[in-house]
Amino acid sequence: MNIKSFHPPQRVLMGPGPSDVSPRVLEAMSRPTLGHLDPVFVSMMDEMKALLKYAFRTENELTMPVSAPGSAGMETCFVNLVEPGDKVVICQNGVFAGRMKENVERAGGVAVMVQDEWGRAIDPQKLEDALKANPDAKIVAFVHAETSTGAQSDAKTLVGIAHKHNCLAIVDAVTSLGGSRLLVDEWKIDAIYSGTQKCISCTPGLSPVSFSNDALEKIKNRKTRVQSWFLDLNLVMGYWGGTTKRAYHHTAPINALYGLHEALVILQEEGLENSWARHQKNHLALRAGLEAMGLSFVVPEGERLPQLNAISVPEGVDEAQVRALLLSDYGLEIGAGLGAMAGKVWRIGLMGHASNPKNVRLCLAALDDVLGRLKAPVQRGVAVAAANAHL
Amino acid sequence: MNIKSFHPPQRVLMGPGPSDVSPRVLEAMSRPTLGHLDPVFVSMMDEMKALLKYAFRTENELTMPVSAPGSAGMETCFVNLVEPGDKVVICQNGVFAGRMKENVERAGGVAVMVQDEWGRAIDPQKLEDALKANPDAKIVAFVHAETSTGAQSDAKTLVGIAHKHNCLAIVDAVTSLGGSRLLVDEWKIDAIYSGTQKCISCTPGLSPVSFSNDALEKIKNRKTRVQSWFLDLNLVMGYWGGTTKRAYHHTAPINALYGLHEALVILQEEGLENSWARHQKNHLALRAGLEAMGLSFVVPEGERLPQLNAISVPEGVDEAQVRALLLSDYGLEIGAGLGAMAGKVWRIGLMGHASNPKNVRLCLAALDDVLGRLKAPVQRGVAVAAANAHL
Repeated sequence: MNIKSFHPPQRVLMGPGPSDVSPRVLEAMSRPTLGHLDPVFVSMMDEMKALLKYAFRTENELTMPVSAPGSAGMETCFVNLVEPGDKVVICQNGVFAGRMKENVERAGGVAVMVQDEWGRAIDPQKLEDALKANPDAKIVAFVHAETSTGAQSDAKTLVGIAHKHNCLAIVDAVTSLGGSRLLVDEWKIDAIYSGTQKCISCTPGLSPVSFSNDALEKIKNRKTRVQSWFLDLNLVMGYWGGTTKRAYHHTAPINALYGLHEALVILQEEGLENSWARHQKNHLALRAGLEAMGLSFVVPEGERLPQLNAISVPEGVDEAQVRALLLSDYGLEIGAGLGAMAGKVWRIGLMGHASNPKNVRLCLAALDDVLGRLKAPVQRGVAVAAANAHL
Repeated sequence: MNIKSFHPPQRVLMGPGPSDVSPRVLEAMSRPTLGHLDPVFVSMMDEMKALLKYAFRTENELTMPVSAPGSAGMETCFVNLVEPGDKVVICQNGVFAGRMKENVERAGGVAVMVQDEWGRAIDPQKLEDALKANPDAKIVAFVHAETSTGAQSDAKTLVGIAHKHNCLAIVDAVTSLGGSRLLVDEWKIDAIYSGTQKCISCTPGLSPVSFSNDALEKIKNRKTRVQSWFLDLNLVMGYWGGTTKRAYHHTAPINALYGLHEALVILQEEGLENSWARHQKNHLALRAGLEAMGLSFVVPEGERLPQLNAISVPEGVDEAQVRALLLSDYGLEIGAGLGAMAGKVWRIGLMGHASNPKNVRLCLAALDDVLGRLKAPVQRGVAVAAANAHL
């Protein structure tokens, strides 16, 4: 065995995440490692919390990154808030609510699924009806921005309905944080988790989370222990909490945190609203180009995520071949369909650092070439010009 | 709020971990991010598995890094192998077996604790007796290299006793992997977890694990679901398993994995036995210096870890002040005591990249200065010369 250093090629990442990472973030990750209890590192942790509060638009004291990917952030919310027997109403309009169900059941809870069409926003009336039919429900959970379909739901309204029925609200913001309007305090979200590899444009591996005081109360007053030691917030708080003395819980992923800190500094420099506006603008340009080619969106207008564009694969086209050609000939990654949409859609991300006019043009020009080569039924030579009108 | 980029100072990390990281590893982490299903990345994953098999000395097919720190690697072993009601015998000679107990109980198992003195190796006879008294035990768990005390136990003998009593053996190798003799297949270890931030000299955040076929059989034949979705090996195997088609489970921490790959390439270049020998040599030099000063080891000779040297704080010395001065005046981090040893010991790591003659000399010279300034009862001006005789 003689394995050499690994030197990855440079890609353009326009799939469902990870998205392109800023060179500043990559450089930050290579800075000297500190001890996880070093006073200089601890002061960086305070900055990290302040930056995450800014990104989430919250004053929640318990706002921090979980030391593992978004899936672990999801699990952090469920294992801490769900006690055995707790009924949780989950609105499903894509893949990730199915994972929420797994989490609820493995935590000993009872999941009540409210099904919506995949590719559509969640229907608030269905949630209202489900809560009327389940007056003993304690928690409502839903995905704000469904990465599997590109649909965005009205989080504010859904949280309002949950509270009206005395439920806490857990919200998946993996793909929305930094990319579209998200106001944790104003919308009164109780528990929220995200990922670093989407619109924050950091590398994958961490999961920013935030918990309201009501959520914190439920966690502190649990009758049973949290089933995960690693994710038990009663313990994690001793390290990330607001006290001056930090207690060792686990060894934090130091250099990955450097990367997230830098990514959040970049977000702060741009301004959160400006970032949302940029995502919207580039989405409109991409949309104009795709529609000019004759490609159609899965999600109706008004329910679309600007950062994740799911489009239907034209008839007769081998979708995997298209992705393979984009990767080999343009170094461009776009995403396949997931779950029920596998084989039927492409998912084109315009997330964070990757949401820029250059990427919009590259993607349209590359699709024009590759779909043309495969004789797909699309209009040639018009996409980039249509996008340019918006850029 | 106007938070700037974070630029950490350069430290010398000679605590219980993280240890100094090679510049090659830091540079590797800043290479371009790939998608987690990119064919180039997937081929890197195959190399990673081969490199980890080499480091663990195993042919176990299920050998991979968990996408979270060592604590999550520990939890991966316990939540997958322990079913509700399972009795687990845990040998405790330091802090981390206490965490194992937490894991067993949270997974619904029954923990039987076998207590040994902190700072000593585990007594095999006590394990033998405990298993005779608990013929229904299904699993034995212990720490190979106790990071809290610097004691090393005879893993081969302990695993042999476990198997004689029809138990699977779970071994914590967080601090031993790469730093001292560890032969997973020859010793027939069933489940093992480690960390990346000790003798592998990568940044913290990942946990290499490996499972024998017997362990795998128990996992596949569980009567109950694994309580963690994120750590459920039945699911994780679909992504890291040996098949050509990788199924999406969670988004892997791409750039952290680049770092681990590079760290393991460095280990392969040096050779595993050479790495063990280097750790031993530098330990003997440090020991000579410390003993020349009149400082004494917590652990008796023959049970000491070369990579983690726990020494007693001399009477009348404020141990925290010493660490603060080492940090401020030499940029040198050593560790405090943990658990029952807090305030009584220092833990001096010579792990991975940090295990080198320059660090041995720096640590001794710095201690000579700082302890002298604080008028500690130590012999001055002799430590470095005593170490030099071994270097």
